[in-house]
Order: sequence, then structure tokens, then C-alpha cells
Amino acid sequence: MIIVMKPQAAAESIKAVTEYIEHNGLNTHLSQGTEVTIIGIVGDKSRLSTENLVSFKDVDRIVPVTESYKLANRKFHPEPSSVKVGNISIGPGSLNIMAGPCAVESKGQLMEIAHAVKAAGATILRGGAYKPRTSPYSFQGLEEEGLRYMQEAGEETGLATICEVVSREAIEAAVKYVDMIQIGARNMQNFILLKEAGRSGLPVLLKRGLSATVEEWLNAAEYIIAEGNPNVILCERGIRTFETATRNTLDLSAVPVLKEKTHLPVIVDPSHATGVYRYVAPLAKAAVACGADGLMIEVHNDPAHALSDGPQSLTFEKFGRLTEELAPYARLAARSFQGSEE
Amino acid sequence: MIIVMKPQAAAESIKAVTEYIEHNGLNTHLSQGTEVTIIGIVGDKSRLSTENLVSFKDVDRIVPVTESYKLANRKFHPEPSSVKVGNISIGPGSLNIMAGPCAVESKGQLMEIAHAVKAAGATILRGGAYKPRTSPYSFQGLEEEGLRYMQEAGEETGLATICEVVSREAIEAAVKYVDMIQIGARNMQNFILLKEAGRSGLPVLLKRGLSATVEEWLNAAEYIIAEGNPNVILCERGIRTFETATRNTLDLSAVPVLKEKTHLPVIVDPSHATGVYRYVAPLAKAAVACGADGLMIEVHNDPAHALSDGPQSLTFEKFGRLTEELAPYARLAARSFQGSEE
Amino acid sequence: MIIVMKPQAAAESIKAVTEYIEHNGLNTHLSQGTEVTIIGIVGDKSRLSTENLVSFKDVDRIVPVTESYKLANRKFHPEPSSVKVGNISIGPGSLNIMAGPCAVESKGQLMEIAHAVKAAGATILRGGAYKPRTSPYSFQGLEEEGLRYMQEAGEETGLATICEVVSREAIEAAVKYVDMIQIGARNMQNFILLKEAGRSGLPVLLKRGLSATVEEWLNAAEYIIAEGNPNVILCERGIRTFETATRNTLDLSAVPVLKEKTHLPVIVDPSHATGVYRYVAPLAKAAVACGADGLMIEVHNDPAHALSDGPQSLTFEKFGRLTEELAPYARLAARSFQGSEE
Amino acid sequence: MIIVMKPQAAAESIKAVTEYIEHNGLNTHLSQGTEVTIIGIVGDKSRLSTENLVSFKDVDRIVPVTESYKLANRKFHPEPSSVKVGNISIGPGSLNIMAGPCAVESKGQLMEIAHAVKAAGATILRGGAYKPRTSPYSFQGLEEEGLRYMQEAGEETGLATICEVVSREAIEAAVKYVDMIQIGARNMQNFILLKEAGRSGLPVLLKRGLSATVEEWLNAAEYIIAEGNPNVILCERGIRTFETATRNTLDLSAVPVLKEKTHLPVIVDPSHATGVYRYVAPLAKAAVACGADGLMIEVHNDPAHALSDGPQSLTFEKFGRLTEELAPYARLAARSFQGSEE
Repeated sequence: MIIVMKPQAAAESIKAVTEYIEHNGLNTHLSQGTEVTIIGIVGDKSRLSTENLVSFKDVDRIVPVTESYKLANRKFHPEPSSVKVGNISIGPGSLNIMAGPCAVESKGQLMEIAHAVKAAGATILRGGAYKPRTSPYSFQGLEEEGLRYMQEAGEETGLATICEVVSREAIEAAVKYVDMIQIGARNMQNFILLKEAGRSGLPVLLKRGLSATVEEWLNAAEYIIAEGNPNVILCERGIRTFETATRNTLDLSAVPVLKEKTHLPVIVDPSHATGVYRYVAPLAKAAVACGADGLMIEVHNDPAHALSDGPQSLTFEKFGRLTEELAPYARLAARSFQGSEE
Repeated sequence: MIIVMKPQAAAESIKAVTEYIEHNGLNTHLSQGTEVTIIGIVGDKSRLSTENLVSFKDVDRIVPVTESYKLANRKFHPEPSSVKVGNISIGPGSLNIMAGPCAVESKGQLMEIAHAVKAAGATILRGGAYKPRTSPYSFQGLEEEGLRYMQEAGEETGLATICEVVSREAIEAAVKYVDMIQIGARNMQNFILLKEAGRSGLPVLLKRGLSATVEEWLNAAEYIIAEGNPNVILCERGIRTFETATRNTLDLSAVPVLKEKTHLPVIVDPSHATGVYRYVAPLAKAAVACGADGLMIEVHNDPAHALSDGPQSLTFEKFGRLTEELAPYARLAARSFQGSEE
Repeated sequence: MIIVMKPQAAAESIKAVTEYIEHNGLNTHLSQGTEVTIIGIVGDKSRLSTENLVSFKDVDRIVPVTESYKLANRKFHPEPSSVKVGNISIGPGSLNIMAGPCAVESKGQLMEIAHAVKAAGATILRGGAYKPRTSPYSFQGLEEEGLRYMQEAGEETGLATICEVVSREAIEAAVKYVDMIQIGARNMQNFILLKEAGRSGLPVLLKRGLSATVEEWLNAAEYIIAEGNPNVILCERGIRTFETATRNTLDLSAVPVLKEKTHLPVIVDPSHATGVYRYVAPLAKAAVACGADGLMIEVHNDPAHALSDGPQSLTFEKFGRLTEELAPYARLAARSFQGSEE
Repeated sequence: MIIVMKPQAAAESIKAVTEYIEHNGLNTHLSQGTEVTIIGIVGDKSRLSTENLVSFKDVDRIVPVTESYKLANRKFHPEPSSVKVGNISIGPGSLNIMAGPCAVESKGQLMEIAHAVKAAGATILRGGAYKPRTSPYSFQGLEEEGLRYMQEAGEETGLATICEVVSREAIEAAVKYVDMIQIGARNMQNFILLKEAGRSGLPVLLKRGLSATVEEWLNAAEYIIAEGNPNVILCERGIRTFETATRNTLDLSAVPVLKEKTHLPVIVDPSHATGVYRYVAPLAKAAVACGADGLMIEVHNDPAHALSDGPQSLTFEKFGRLTEELAPYARLAARSFQGSEE
């Protein structure tokens, strides 16, 4: 951490800052420029609440030089991680697709979709049983009944399963039925839920918050890992910007940024990001081309009658065509892909 | 809701849409323009998932014409509401200031601050016992112990009290000790927590999410009210934008917008919005000038040594000067203000 | 400027950086931390393109510690400036309102509006003769004819006059007819136009770009001042965010931020920021309360039939009521205000 | 255009609106819902300033249903366009790379770079002679001298050439030396410059403004085409968001959105979007994968000593490796690519 003093900072002001730091058991290092003086802090910064130094006289600003996340940080874990979900391994060398409906609506619907996405090359079945909806009057999910259907669909097809959780109760239920849990964008900084996900024992898919920086996102992952659960996968799903042509703005540059900053696997969800099924295929290819370890894609047997997010869902036919088209992109990225082997 | 068809939409496409709507028990109303055909839906839209209509052939887009929130909507409740917090009434005709430290650090600290803010004219003591922090390694709050200190400080000074809650456990504890609970920006769309806040029986201060539109914010309030708790106060605390000169961008235009769209009281938190104590006083005055029913302001006995958010906290002296300066602004807004009576 | 090296940066990497800097005639200052090494640069940085240092091996990032604008910087000009426009002085101690139609439509219309805003206390007449419009098919302004009407209206009423300019031709014409020119938001980084405004000899109102940071805005002001024209006034008019309840998001915190960073006067335009006439009055009061030196407000004789921006224009009656209500806010801010003297 | 009235709108209010519209020679179409009345406008809307209707009593809002751009609109020009630049054709079936330095620094530098990018498969040489820089104290370009070097480099290598223009003078000079002109992000709504580019006779690369919506961008293209110049190519180069890990946020979803809304070719500039050379290659592949017709990439002989934008420039070696890697992506997209033929 560096403290930049104001021009013409008084000698006593500089002394007050250095004394405060040293009083907390850290060392300082002064750098006298022509215009400003800079004070470097040497040692374990967790010992002091350095942000308060801004309140000291003649302090201009504080510049952090190291990241606050450690366990998720590639600097300290240079090798990319793989995360096991059921029999599947998500990470370097493979491309995994999580596909299924936004919301589980009925057993019959889910079975039909599960068979279809399995046939097309998906390895993980997604389906929402607990739906966080903007309006309290929208359909909120089948809850535990939906989880049961997910388990049955997983067993029948051999697909691994993932469900979003929104509360401790949902986690406690999910542990009984599915292979992986998802923390949604709106809960990315629900730190209580992150800690409980960390204690669940299940791998966790952590979606990016609508206005979360990469830095905040990795700190959220740190919450989960710090509870002893290293099995975290990050999912880029669009950020909120001024543009309204798509529901959110898919930030694909986050993929190479994350590959540099963290060892955790990264997947991309073009369905929620755009909210429009016609844009899903081109952006799915782009995601693989820029280094994603997988995709999450909404597929529905009858998008026009879906209870949630119909406009962004692919039909079985469109999803089948997409996985066919993705196969050569997986090969270019040196990733094995079930869709391409069939 | 209006459905705008594409130019040259086929007659069968228009027929498919109208039949689907009418099949769901609603009526349609066709408007044939020179370029496009528009289909109006007449009746109770909650009967169909109209957003899926986007997936129908030749549909260009869906335009909602009514808001999804009803209980929070001023159209259906034209009179502005007042919310009682302890003996205090927040709403038209009065200006209330919630003041105190970001985090409760110790009993002595809290008592000292409580007496100081009371003397300067605050009516409600704020103090965080459960702190949602970006990094898991930052100070997370004193939890129930902190709530107990809040209660004692409230009893000793006669101030009403408010604490942020982050989980059901925190709500269950808060109910025993404080007069009002706060849902923070990062939990604004934690719908489980909103429902539990709705069932708590306590008035709820609902902070705006960092990237929440006014529409989403009012839908979040609807979650609380729909549980039978009409005592919701909205708190504007800055939104996330590209500007970095302030921590967030305080959206004061939200105040007159909310006054038009909802009957709920609105307060403003310039401390969190800016993150810089020097900007708190001018923006507090601006908030009152544009119609806010109250303010939330961070005050600390020793900002340079605060465990959280020191840079944005006012000293006792600065807070006292601010309430003095606010008094004539309260008078101009025809609001009684305790600070001005002393 | 500070160069933060990566953890475990090789000694040769550090040497390469310091040699490059010293080769350019500057001095370096090393600070060896436990995790990272930091290199401070001492001397006149304009001698080297330091941003390229990012490309050097083992360099993590470059942190600027001084602002690039000097002439607009309050650090070097601690006293707030006043700018003369005709007989009017804009700056500390007075509150000036620029009012008038978005677009000059006819001589009769302009005269009528000029008399009305003068009577209500405005000191400067605004009116667009060159309109930058999103679509090429929208009304683009009366051009030089409009400027002539502005001059006549100014002479008849004694109001000073301001017009937006969009090209060198417009500046050359404006110099003949009006007292002040305006650079609009969409041209804030049209550096050619900024330089020509700087050479025009007229005071310049510089509106903030839709996505300009305060830092970029002050650098744009620097372009004008660097041409020898110190008479620059800044105008906050809303920034682009995700919120759609208002056309843009009025960033009132920019007012105290600017008061700290620059000596230039600052005014606020709530009409363009919100795009809704009902929000103009509360935000105009808020602007004065947080320190603005003036306001720019759209007033129209017949908003429902205006050729541009009707929805945000005030009628004469509403503008009159607003200036009456503003008078006590001006007094609280220790500013003389013509509106209050009548 | 649709006018949505407020609930309980008075019959006279509805009558006032319809009479105003019909008075302007248009027809109306009423749709009476259970809660609100909607008025559709039938006919040529350019006849009335419908936005002012918002000021009419009981009007809730105006919803446009058709786009304001016509010449750039794919609805009216369903076939994708190709644009000729020198001997090159940009559009369906080919992938073109524009490569070169951010700023032309000297003849020797430009020649060296031109030969290198030509050898690696670029078809167009880019190089800035007029540099719009945030600070007036940064290097502003070699101007006409730089254009002359561009011409010589084009003649020697057979590459087509493109230069940014910032003023009419720059356009008048560019016409003499280069094959294509570029309007930069900061000038995207400099409507005077757009019109002059439209009259220049040269093909125009129109970069997206930092905070421009797709809709505004296409309206800016419309300005150029409306002057009789249909040879416009759009260039996505990142938008401004809250994220700071990259300089801007590359909006790749804009590529499929544009492919749907316009017939104009679309290219992507990952160098300016990210500001970091390490992210250029993955995002270049992603751009091709999602449908871009070309790329603009910064290449420099010595990035560490570049006078502008060094950190984002590729070395010759990195650029050569990138074009090799891009070849199979071009094949998958069914595009011929010079880089792949060598």
C-alpha cells in the first residue's frame, strides 16, 4: 500500500502518518518527489485499517498495490485448477456445456429437455428450482420438488446437475439432490450465502454480479474458498451498462482477464447476458474462442410457453446445431468436447 | 402490454399471437399502422407469461404499459405515507437524521457517538453490527453484542435505533434489540431476505442496489409490503457508474422520481454515496432541497481510527455544524427538524 | 508517477526500468516491500511516455500521482475564479440563471421568452441556433439567423446571451452576435473545437460529456485555457448510466468535487439532465444547495409545440415560481440573485 | 409511435392529443384497455414533433415503434453490404485486418511496420496522423507529414491505408493521401464532421462512441450516408462501464446485434477496447467467431518506446502469431483471409 501526500504536505503531517503506521508494527519507506512525497508501507497490512489514513492531514490518497484475495489469486497458485462435478472435470483441456431450462416446470418437461441436451453433447443439466424474480408476483420455482426432478433427470441421463440456491434452506435441500450449486448474480455479494455455500461441500458456480468488478467477484470467490471449499467456477453472465439492445452487456474480455488473475475455471452464459436467443450461438462461439472452459445455455422444449425467460431459450434443434458448430472451436482451443465425439 | 409486430408481419403470425392471448382468457386490440401492426392486450396480464411472446414469429417487441408493483405504487395510493420508528414519524412534514458509526466497535465508542449525535439533532442512531464486506478478511462486525450496545445506547439517549441485517438470524436478533432494520445495497435483490424482513414486524429501510433501477427498487419494496409490512423507507445511496472521483454516483434525481412513483418515504445517504467526508455536507443540503424526508450520515468519534469507512465519517464537530446549517433548509422544505429547535 | 513491479520481479527487470527512466533525464527512487518493489519517478514526467513502461518485463502497473491539467487545477490557483459575461459576473457571491428555449424557432418566439425570463430574474438568455441532433432528420437549427435574433433579444432586454457552437463557422458567426459560446456534451472531446473556442476570445461554457470523468472534463477545459482563454465555466448536465427513469443521471456530487479540484465556476443544467420538466425545480434547488454558481434552465412559451426538447421545458409560470423559490436558497448560499431582489 | 395515457385520463385529454395529431395530417388509432388508453399514430411521423406530446395533460409516455435511421437499416436493405477500400472489399466472405501503429512517428518507423504487417497478412495499414488526446500536453500527431508517410507506405507495400480525421482540414488533407478515413469514438456525435466525411467521397470507418447506444451509432452512420456516401464500416471499440480491469468494455454482443439491425460491415478493435496487449489475441479470435468482418489491431516495432498507446500494441512477432492463429477461425466463418493463404 502506498500513501500519496498532498503537494506541500507539512513535515508534521508526514510524521503523523509514518508514526501511526509504525505504531501498528509495520515499516515505512519514504520517497520524496519534486512535487509530492510518497510513503510506502512494508509488512502485513492486515494489521491496520489503512483506508482511514485518508482522514489524516495532508494525505491525498491511498493506492493499494496488492490484491486482497489470496486463495483465488493466480499469483500464488500459478497452475489453472480443475473442478470435479460428478464425473465431469471442468477446467483446462475440456469444454463442458451446462444446458437446460431457466426454471424446472414439471417432471415431464425436465426429462424431455434432459434427454435432448444430453444427446446434443451437454454434460451438465441446469434447471432452476428456486427463482429470484424481480417482481414478487412472478413464478418463483417448484423448490424441493424441482430438485427431486433434477436428481431423477440426472440419474436417468447420466448428466451431472446444477441448481441455483438462494438461501440456507435451499442449500440444505440441494445437497441431497444435485451435484453442484449456483450462486446467482443478485446474490454475488450475499456474503452469508457465500459462506454457507463454502461449507456445503458441493462445487459452486459463482455468477458475476450485475455491477461487480472482476476484483469484487474474486473477493466473493475468496469467501467460498476461505470456508475450505476450493471448488469454485466463475460464470460471466453480462454486466449492467447503458446499452439496451441486449439485456446486459456480455463482458468477454473478463475471460482473458480472469485467466490471468485467477486459477479458477471460467464459463460464460450468453443466454442471460443477451436475453435474446438469436445472439446465443455467435457469442457461445466467441466465448470458446477467447478461452472459456465451458458454457451455460438455456434450452427449452417450447420457448414460447416457458414460465421464465422464454425469449432467450434455444429450441432442441437450435441447440443441436450450436453444439455441432462448437465442436471445431473446441478443437482449436485444444479442448475435448463430448458434442464433437458423436 | 403492447405487442409490436415486425414490418410485413404475416397475417398468420398476427393470428397466432392473438389466438395465444385470447386462449389465455384475455382480449386483444389490433392497431394497423402504415408500417407495423400493434396488438394491445386487454385484461389481467398476470394470467400469461407475455414475455415469451417475443419468441413468436414476426414479433418485434413487447412494451409494458403498467408497472408490476402495486402496493408501493403512488397511482393506487396517492397520499404520501409516514412510517413510525419508535416515537419518530418519517415522512411529510418532518426531517429525520439517522446518524452514527458505520460499525459498532465497542460500547464506549457507541455511547459517546450516541450522545453526540443526539445533541446535534439526530433522531435515530445507526450502527452496523453485521457488516457485509467485500473481502472476507475485513472486520465483519460485533453481531449480537453490537445489537445489545445499540439497544443500551437507544435507551440511554432516547434515540430510535436502526441496524443492517444480512440473514434471517440477524433479523431474529435485531427484533429483540432495535427499532428498525436495514437491507443493504448488496442485498436489495436477496428476495429471501426481503420476505423475511417483511415478516419481521419492524419498519424496514431499503437501500438501493448499486445497479438497481428505480423500477427494480420499487419491486424490491413490493416484496416486503406483500408480506404484510407497509413500513418501508427507501434510501438512495449512490449507484455504480464510470466516475471514480466519488465512490458511487449519488442519484439525487431519484428523489423527485420516487416522490412521483411511490408513496413511500425517501431518505438519502451522502456518506456511502461519496465515500469522502468533505462532500457529505453539500450533498446533505441538496438532498433536503430536492425533497428528501431524511438523511443517513456516518459520524465517528475518531475517523482516522475507525474499523470501517473512516474516510467518509464526520467528526462530532463537523456533524454539529452540518445540522445547524441544515435547519434553514428544513424550514424551506416545510419540515420540522429537531436540530433547528435547539 | 509510481511503477509497481510484479511480485518476484527479477533484478534485471527492475534495472531495465530504472535505466530507461534515468536515460530520459529523470531520477528514480526504489522502495523494496516484502511482496513488491515500487519505483518512484522524480522529475518532469513530460519528458517520457511513461505509460509505455507497462510493456517492460515484470512491470505490474503505473500509478499517476499528479493531475495532467495545470491551468484548471485549484492546487495551483487556490482562489475561485469569476468569469465576466457581458455585464454579468459568474462565480463566488452570485447566482446566475441562463434561461431560454432549447432551439431558437422564430424572432417572435425568442423575444417573448427573453422578456419573460428577464422578468423572472434570469441574467443570461440561452437559445440554440446550431442543434446537434441524434438523427439527421430532426430540426437542426436556424443557424446565423438564430444568432441574429439572439443579439436582438439581448439588446432589447439587457440580458447577456449564450449559444452553442458546433464548428469553426459557428464560432466565427457567434463572435459577431453573442456574449458567450457553449461547447455541448457531444463535443466535449472535440479537441479541434476546444482549441478554436480557446482562440475565440469569448467566455466558454463547457458542458460535461455524457461519459466523461471529472478528470477528462478538466483536461478538456485545459485545452481551452491553454489557448490563452481563462474564461471557462463548467456545466454539469447529467451522465449516462443504466437508469432510464431520467434521460441522464444528474451527478450533483460533481459540484463539490469540482469546487475542490478546480477554480473554475460550475453551473448545473437540470433540464437536459432529467429530460422531464417536473424534476427541474427540485434539482435546481439542490444544485444551489450544494454550491453551484448558476443554473441553465429551458423555458418555452409553448412546450407542447416546441421544435426540440419540449418535455423538459418550463412554462413562464413554472419558471417564475421556480425563481421565487430559489431566492432563499441563494441567500443561504450567500449569493446575490437578481430574482430575489424584485 | 404509440402514446400511452395515464390511468383515468380524462376524455378531454385524450381528445386534445388526437386532435393535435390529426391537425398535423396524421391518423390516430385508439385502444381502450382496462387500465389505460393507448393512442397509435398512423402516417409519416416526421411531420410532427411527437416528443412534445409528453407535455400534454394525462399523457404518461411515448413509445417509438420504428427506428429513425432508414439508409443504414437492414429492414429496408436486407442484403449485407460490402465496402471497397482500394482493392480490398470489406464485408461478407472475407476477413480484413487493419494493422499499424497508434500514431505515425516517423517515416522509417511506419515503413518498417507496414512491411511487417503486410507480411503477416494485414490488408490495410492504419496509423494516426491527427491524434485526439485527453490532455493538451500529450503528443498530437505529425498531421499532413504523417499522411504523406502513410501514402508512401501504402504505395511501397500495396496495402490500403486508413487515417483518423478530426476536422475538415484533416479530411481535405486525407483525401489526397489515404484510401479511407476514420471517425474516432470521441467524434462519433460530432455531426458536422460526420456530414463532411459523408461529402469526402472516401469510405468511412465509424468507431462507436464511448457511451453510444447501438441506436445512436446507427443514427451517426445515417448522417454520413444521408450525404450520399454509403461506404460506411462500423467499428466496435469498447464502451465505458464501471469495470476498470480493461480500459473499456468490449461489447462483442454488438456484433450480432448490428448484423441484425444494419447491412453495414462491422469490424472490432480489441487493442483500444482493452488497452492491454495480452488480451488482444483472445478477443480478436472471439470477434471473428461471433461474426466480425474484420479487425483493427495496433502493431508497433517497439511498444515500450511508442509515443502513444504502447501498452496495447503487439510486437511483430506477436502479431504474426495472431494472424496464424486467426486463419482457422476465418475458415470456420467462411471468410477468405490473406493471412491464411501464405
